[in-house]
Amino acid sequence: MNGNLLNETIERIKPLDEKAMQEAANHLDRLTKPKGSLGKLENLAVQLAGITGKVKPSFPKRAVIVMAGDHGVVEEGVTAYPPEVTPQMVLNFLAGGATVNVLSRQAGADVLCVDIGVNADLSHPQLISRKVRKGTANMAKGPAMTRTEVEQAILVGIETVKDCASKGYTLFVTGEMGIGNTTPSAAIVSAFTGLSPIETVGRGTGIDDAILKHKVEVVQQALDVNKPDFNDPIDVLAKVGGLEIAGLVGVILGAASRRCPVVIDGFISSAAALVAKHMSKEAVHYMIGSHFSQEQGHKLVIGELGISPMLHMDMRVGEGTGGVLSLHLVDAICRIMSEMATFESAGVSDRE
Amino acid sequence: MNGNLLNETIERIKPLDEKAMQEAANHLDRLTKPKGSLGKLENLAVQLAGITGKVKPSFPKRAVIVMAGDHGVVEEGVTAYPPEVTPQMVLNFLAGGATVNVLSRQAGADVLCVDIGVNADLSHPQLISRKVRKGTANMAKGPAMTRTEVEQAILVGIETVKDCASKGYTLFVTGEMGIGNTTPSAAIVSAFTGLSPIETVGRGTGIDDAILKHKVEVVQQALDVNKPDFNDPIDVLAKVGGLEIAGLVGVILGAASRRCPVVIDGFISSAAALVAKHMSKEAVHYMIGSHFSQEQGHKLVIGELGISPMLHMDMRVGEGTGGVLSLHLVDAICRIMSEMATFESAGVSDRE
Repeated sequence: MNGNLLNETIERIKPLDEKAMQEAANHLDRLTKPKGSLGKLENLAVQLAGITGKVKPSFPKRAVIVMAGDHGVVEEGVTAYPPEVTPQMVLNFLAGGATVNVLSRQAGADVLCVDIGVNADLSHPQLISRKVRKGTANMAKGPAMTRTEVEQAILVGIETVKDCASKGYTLFVTGEMGIGNTTPSAAIVSAFTGLSPIETVGRGTGIDDAILKHKVEVVQQALDVNKPDFNDPIDVLAKVGGLEIAGLVGVILGAASRRCPVVIDGFISSAAALVAKHMSKEAVHYMIGSHFSQEQGHKLVIGELGISPMLHMDMRVGEGTGGVLSLHLVDAICRIMSEMATFESAGVSDRE
Repeated sequence: MNGNLLNETIERIKPLDEKAMQEAANHLDRLTKPKGSLGKLENLAVQLAGITGKVKPSFPKRAVIVMAGDHGVVEEGVTAYPPEVTPQMVLNFLAGGATVNVLSRQAGADVLCVDIGVNADLSHPQLISRKVRKGTANMAKGPAMTRTEVEQAILVGIETVKDCASKGYTLFVTGEMGIGNTTPSAAIVSAFTGLSPIETVGRGTGIDDAILKHKVEVVQQALDVNKPDFNDPIDVLAKVGGLEIAGLVGVILGAASRRCPVVIDGFISSAAALVAKHMSKEAVHYMIGSHFSQEQGHKLVIGELGISPMLHMDMRVGEGTGGVLSLHLVDAICRIMSEMATFESAGVSDRE
């Protein structure tokens, strides 16, 4: 059991640097633009200063960590695509052909693909093979996995971030692949918020009304059968979670413990972020909002997390795509903090 | 009089290429992602195909055209910053220190600064000097300018795009600088929509409640005194417009006539786009939405234009900043169309 590393990681997550945040706010007010006029980018500048301790940070080495796992609950017929798409898409990531690859090349980010629970034997020189088990059990009939498996999966995330940090990565994006994974995500959000699955379940990759209705019933059944305890995040993950979701909890906690910003992608990543928040209230301050997903439950989780997405693209690809697409906005504010003229340096009149 | 060039430009604006749009839609459905899951990026891909005739377009050479002009109406006390900020910021653009410069360097875009009506003598090797007059007259007391001046200003925009096209630019962003220019923009939107200034006037660069109330009254007065005819866009611009706004109308019409996409920045640019729409219904199909400005009237104009902003940043800088920031999203979909694997090429199972 590695409960110690998990606890140590959580304990290392500290409050943001208030002094750096104040300095960043002061610097923003000296730049040649109306005060506050950069909106969410200004909030981001202050947050990044608080995370890194630097008023003018930059993040040249960044990774999207794509955790891949399968879900026993797909046997209930809740998905638009068949489960063999999970390993097929992992191979597509490794070949560089998926949306997340294209957007990561644009963003100068590396795609790190982790097999944490794919229900197939996969082998590839670039694949990070950390399989905890071959997919979860069907949560509609009992727990998705054991507490020990959850802890192992979280540690995979923590250790992946640790390896990245040793190679110079300082900014992370959460990504995932797992046919069926909006189903446990909805169950997790319902478990923590008490909201009915009618509010947390969405269409995933594109199911019709009949399957949507059935998916709501399956999530309700998983909650009724397992009775996850919202005061015990490991219990929630074990009963109605997923391996890749647990892995992302580890990525988020690991990044926060190293004072690295972690960009939270869409609904599944936000469900992982909600779990991380319940393990460490401080962890949310290291999370960067990215896009506003089309998945209906996403809005609810964002509200719970208190993060603010900047991109409204109606996207529902997953993989970390919305997160990677928003790295551009992180870079934009870093450039603004470093490159923009001040009222004084440019000889521009400030308002009285 | 150059009314002929204006009419010729409008006549050259043709419908989008339906065949290329269908081909782009078909290509999107073959890519390894759930159908439709890229949301607004998919709409953008189809639109860009319709504009350019290419399923896999790219726009290596792009410019943000920043039209700068002053406004007689500032003597009514409707602004947060003094009018000398207009020429000061023009010099800041030329020195590379403003927000639009920083974001344009990131986007690989060139900032072209046009003095179309600054109320100061400006000279700089990089400045495009096309001054029509030194600022408009106070529209609260009479017409802002003559019809001839409006036509001259529109032609400056058309000719600036023509010059750019001859140098290989194929993508344009609208930008502007002009202390006071949210005031005529609100008047233009009210003139075309019939909406009260209470709905179209906003806080600009950050005025307080008292000045906001006064600004609403000033716009109402300008409409009452001038009675702009919404069936005659030149009349609207002459009576309650601005030189930089008229210049941007020319940029938009010029870009559309050359089958180039034109990214529409925030409220002022959108007011110019609304004028352009009233001169050519086809022109709107060449407009790309960018950000959702914090200026209250922006939402109304977007609805009128039928464009769909992707960035929700609460920005209110102007200059073209929101437009330039969204070039990343244009590039993202161009890369996706060119680089992504298909279900067939990657061996991924499509849904039944």
